[in-house]
Amino acid sequence: MDDIIYLDNAATSFPKPEEVYLAIEKTMRTQGSNPGRSGHKGAIEAGRVIFEARENISKLIEIEDPLRIAFTMNATEALNTAIKGLLKKGDHVVTTSMEHNSVLRPIKALENIGVSSTIVQCSERGELDPKKIEKAVRKNTKLIAVTHASNITGTIMPINEIGVIAKKTGVCFLVDAAQTAGSYDVKVNENNIELLAIPGHKGLLGPQGTGVLYIAEGVEVTQLKEGGTGSRSEDLLQPTFMPDKYESGTPNTLGIAGLSKGVEYILNKGIENIRDHEESLAEHFILELEKIEEVKIYGLRKRGKHAAVVSINIGDEDSAEISYILDKVYNIATRAGLHCAPLAHKTIGTFEQGTVRFSFGIFNTHEEVERVIRAIKEITSQL
Amino acid sequence: MDDIIYLDNAATSFPKPEEVYLAIEKTMRTQGSNPGRSGHKGAIEAGRVIFEARENISKLIEIEDPLRIAFTMNATEALNTAIKGLLKKGDHVVTTSMEHNSVLRPIKALENIGVSSTIVQCSERGELDPKKIEKAVRKNTKLIAVTHASNITGTIMPINEIGVIAKKTGVCFLVDAAQTAGSYDVKVNENNIELLAIPGHKGLLGPQGTGVLYIAEGVEVTQLKEGGTGSRSEDLLQPTFMPDKYESGTPNTLGIAGLSKGVEYILNKGIENIRDHEESLAEHFILELEKIEEVKIYGLRKRGKHAAVVSINIGDEDSAEISYILDKVYNIATRAGLHCAPLAHKTIGTFEQGTVRFSFGIFNTHEEVERVIRAIKEITSQL
Repeated sequence: MDDIIYLDNAATSFPKPEEVYLAIEKTMRTQGSNPGRSGHKGAIEAGRVIFEARENISKLIEIEDPLRIAFTMNATEALNTAIKGLLKKGDHVVTTSMEHNSVLRPIKALENIGVSSTIVQCSERGELDPKKIEKAVRKNTKLIAVTHASNITGTIMPINEIGVIAKKTGVCFLVDAAQTAGSYDVKVNENNIELLAIPGHKGLLGPQGTGVLYIAEGVEVTQLKEGGTGSRSEDLLQPTFMPDKYESGTPNTLGIAGLSKGVEYILNKGIENIRDHEESLAEHFILELEKIEEVKIYGLRKRGKHAAVVSINIGDEDSAEISYILDKVYNIATRAGLHCAPLAHKTIGTFEQGTVRFSFGIFNTHEEVERVIRAIKEITSQL
Repeated sequence: MDDIIYLDNAATSFPKPEEVYLAIEKTMRTQGSNPGRSGHKGAIEAGRVIFEARENISKLIEIEDPLRIAFTMNATEALNTAIKGLLKKGDHVVTTSMEHNSVLRPIKALENIGVSSTIVQCSERGELDPKKIEKAVRKNTKLIAVTHASNITGTIMPINEIGVIAKKTGVCFLVDAAQTAGSYDVKVNENNIELLAIPGHKGLLGPQGTGVLYIAEGVEVTQLKEGGTGSRSEDLLQPTFMPDKYESGTPNTLGIAGLSKGVEYILNKGIENIRDHEESLAEHFILELEKIEEVKIYGLRKRGKHAAVVSINIGDEDSAEISYILDKVYNIATRAGLHCAPLAHKTIGTFEQGTVRFSFGIFNTHEEVERVIRAIKEITSQL
């Protein structure tokens, strides 16, 4: 049985559009060069490819200036740069109990230098009450860091309301769009988002090894790394301008070339069409799951309230065991356990059991949903 | 004229062995998965590919434990992690005037937190006197950071002698092997190297977006970033074990798959055979250049004293202009300017003019050297 059903798109989307593969192949086989460094044709072409990627991402998040986009290795690096670059000794940060470790661990590490934090508790369905965010803001609060959607329940967070609070209180707003970019609008200006982190390899349909950090003009973020930037080579100090300040060393040109084509695919297809397809799959899945008595579904179930990520358990069975059977017997790829978000699992009450997570992508089909439902029914009946 | 002569291997090697391309293609087209996270077949296969890469690199630098290898985005990230993770307030670091900005800029940035440095002056041919390193070591010296070979003149630094000094004085020794790994032995144990940074996309023949950091057991290096590691997901603190401590977020699986095959290619071919080929090209090139009166050659010329990197100027002509003509008229890719190493250019006296850099790789040929020489003669005669 070779036809794998891939439902781990919240980790890395798969497959990618053919254009993405072709761009990677072309870039790696025809250009060896470092963008923005040497002046020969290959290097200039590499620079062009990377600039085009900045332009495509700018269109996606609706900003004017492509140079506000810095490329990172992954969303984790983008989040670390934003959080550690902005917060200094004595600062306070507000975040939520539904965050990924890529937000929580850097914040926790900053305690060592005297940064304090408030982790706003979400409901057991993963919902965030924006009033709680506002209440948590103190005089020394410098940052509100919130995921756009939970990577476990898919619950969509009220970023518009939080954006209004951020603006009103004058606090910088960081959004982790790991589970939404590509399927949901992330309009940074409209929502007062000043810092935005996106992985290249999930909803943006690019390859692994790519991530995006958007920094609004005027926001002071210290770089994590210094090094060669191909600019101001004569200077021992890191350049202070975007994006060079945050892009030390040779970038992942072939990865970024692929990412650019992934974003182009999304722009052509239309974010709303992708969302519609993914949400209809998740809706179909949940409606069928609800008919199976032994299945517990976590988070909000209503379409439009969550991204196409569905976490479940079957009775009290170990989530890893169920995920293993799905893979081994049915060739269905899911992810079990804590998904690098321990507080979120505490929030929804699954810290011990974990959950089996099904995350849908643009290339999944309703026929696949039905096969998965049949598999779950079979497993359930045999327990 | 389509047959480009690529002589910018010191920036990024090109082309790569066919196996590297095939591994990248296979990985991206058949596995979407995050290694070490989900438990399904694709994720397990991705984990296997990455472990194999660690094993291959371990063989190359002759260490026993593949888990001492952490993957980074590039050598710059590896150097930043080593330098910023090791040095604390009050510490002192010794480095040299031939370093790349990826070493000098992080050290410079650490001045802000009270780290001091001594930059040992090299000769105008780029030579480093190890006695000067020893002299520069103080009571509070915590690190000696030295490139294995200059990225401008190729000058090979006496890392064995410095290793002995490091051991004697009890100072940690960091080597930047950006210009040597893959062509020269970097035996970390033999040379008392406790920290080693290698780009994946130069001598190791992997793609861009990959780098390697080796950390010897017992050396305390704080991570630059925290985040999801797929391990200890229940914990808000970053794991403290190698390599997870330094590998937050999704790694560049397809890049690392390619890198692994690049290193395999080197192991099969033999480091000494690769070095022999590259050195013979550089030797041939220099012998022919010496016959052209207008050409100034920088650094040591003797075979064995420098990696296959040759920097020149033609009279007082702007290096960028010469590099431009080589590319435009002769389809020869070189790199001009300061090569992100301003102090090195001050050291060899080319801070104003820069140099035209020719860097040879395993796939260059003697016939190409001859074509380049003819081009330089033609340019020179027309000036």
